[in-house]
Amino acid sequence: MRIGELSRRTGVPVPTIKYYVREGLLPAGRLTSPNQAIYEDAHERRLRLIRALLDVGGLSVAAIREVLSAVDEVGMPVHDVLGVAADRLVPRYAEADPDDALEAARDDVATLIERRGWRVDDDTPAGESLAGALAALERVGHGSFAEVLDDYADAAERVAAADLGYVARRAGLDGLVERVVVGTVLGDAVFASLRRLAQIDRSAGVYGEQGSAGAEGQAGADR
Amino acid sequence: MRIGELSRRTGVPVPTIKYYVREGLLPAGRLTSPNQAIYEDAHERRLRLIRALLDVGGLSVAAIREVLSAVDEVGMPVHDVLGVAADRLVPRYAEADPDDALEAARDDVATLIERRGWRVDDDTPAGESLAGALAALERVGHGSFAEVLDDYADAAERVAAADLGYVARRAGLDGLVERVVVGTVLGDAVFASLRRLAQIDRSAGVYGEQGSAGAEGQAGADR
Repeated sequence: MRIGELSRRTGVPVPTIKYYVREGLLPAGRLTSPNQAIYEDAHERRLRLIRALLDVGGLSVAAIREVLSAVDEVGMPVHDVLGVAADRLVPRYAEADPDDALEAARDDVATLIERRGWRVDDDTPAGESLAGALAALERVGHGSFAEVLDDYADAAERVAAADLGYVARRAGLDGLVERVVVGTVLGDAVFASLRRLAQIDRSAGVYGEQGSAGAEGQAGADR
Repeated sequence: MRIGELSRRTGVPVPTIKYYVREGLLPAGRLTSPNQAIYEDAHERRLRLIRALLDVGGLSVAAIREVLSAVDEVGMPVHDVLGVAADRLVPRYAEADPDDALEAARDDVATLIERRGWRVDDDTPAGESLAGALAALERVGHGSFAEVLDDYADAAERVAAADLGYVARRAGLDGLVERVVVGTVLGDAVFASLRRLAQIDRSAGVYGEQGSAGAEGQAGADR
């Protein structure tokens, strides 16, 4: 198909498609004349993947380029592929200067990993990312959030089991890494939305429709 | 304290602090002379909260302004407060044109909510956000991800129960909404990191250290 047809099918404007090609996210079409290129179904599929990572995953163009280079690598051991995806798709935030809060959070993460018996490297980016989030909680006076960490870890193990089951069920060489990437990035968005829905439901059960923040808050504090 | 001291304590540059004041995120200091303002501990606390929402939560300045206005509202019923937080802090992404994928995903979400018995409004933003993520999965050819939706929902219920427990345990009038906001935003980051760690562990158990993506993938497909 020509670029106009590719644009029509995916809803991505032609200049944006050209931008993705220049940025190395999308392979160039096959030239049939100096001014005309032909695009295949694989281009359409890749373009939809780029948009999903951008729009729903909230990834930057640079992060997508990095992730797609992993998608295009084949023959890598499955465990390594999952490791690469987990490392590259980890939430990253502006690095704060190392302080006492971060040091303490790193210790907490090491203890947690040992307590759960998780087979992960000490210096895995996901661990550092977790330490960063816990340190941020501590800095805003919510260090006690760590009390619910094992409840979160229980839930994370359940989700990870579902994730790996999803990957294993349909794994063929083709599309394995793409499945991991898509599942990892869009899975976060799916889970965050489900968490909100479950919170609203739980809140309806606990607080019903009555009671002001003050009154109910005090009742909660007395429990 | 003066603005220089506030900057030193929080690591936020003076011009940035002034920017937050202009944008309405941070109340102005109390003027003691035309060129000098005094800031209190409450300013320091609010400034740390802003940075946590920005750096770890990845929220925009506009989103933070909206959320902080909820933080500053008092006397709102607890269930409403949680609802507002859930609505405003939901993952939002560039709106795709409504298509068949989105229509089908909305039906799936309504069915899921009914199946789980969740007491939520039909038009809650979290439901629309979930439909958007599911539609994105469908568009990139991963609609079968919906198979693991109930595993995710089980995990989300567990996390939501921990979240509400955390809110209830310490709720006084002061800081209830802040706790909800911080827990909601930073909780997503905590969970995403834990999910990666649990995935790596699970993958180590399933795939060990050997086997290429191709070979193991085929084995997986045979199961």
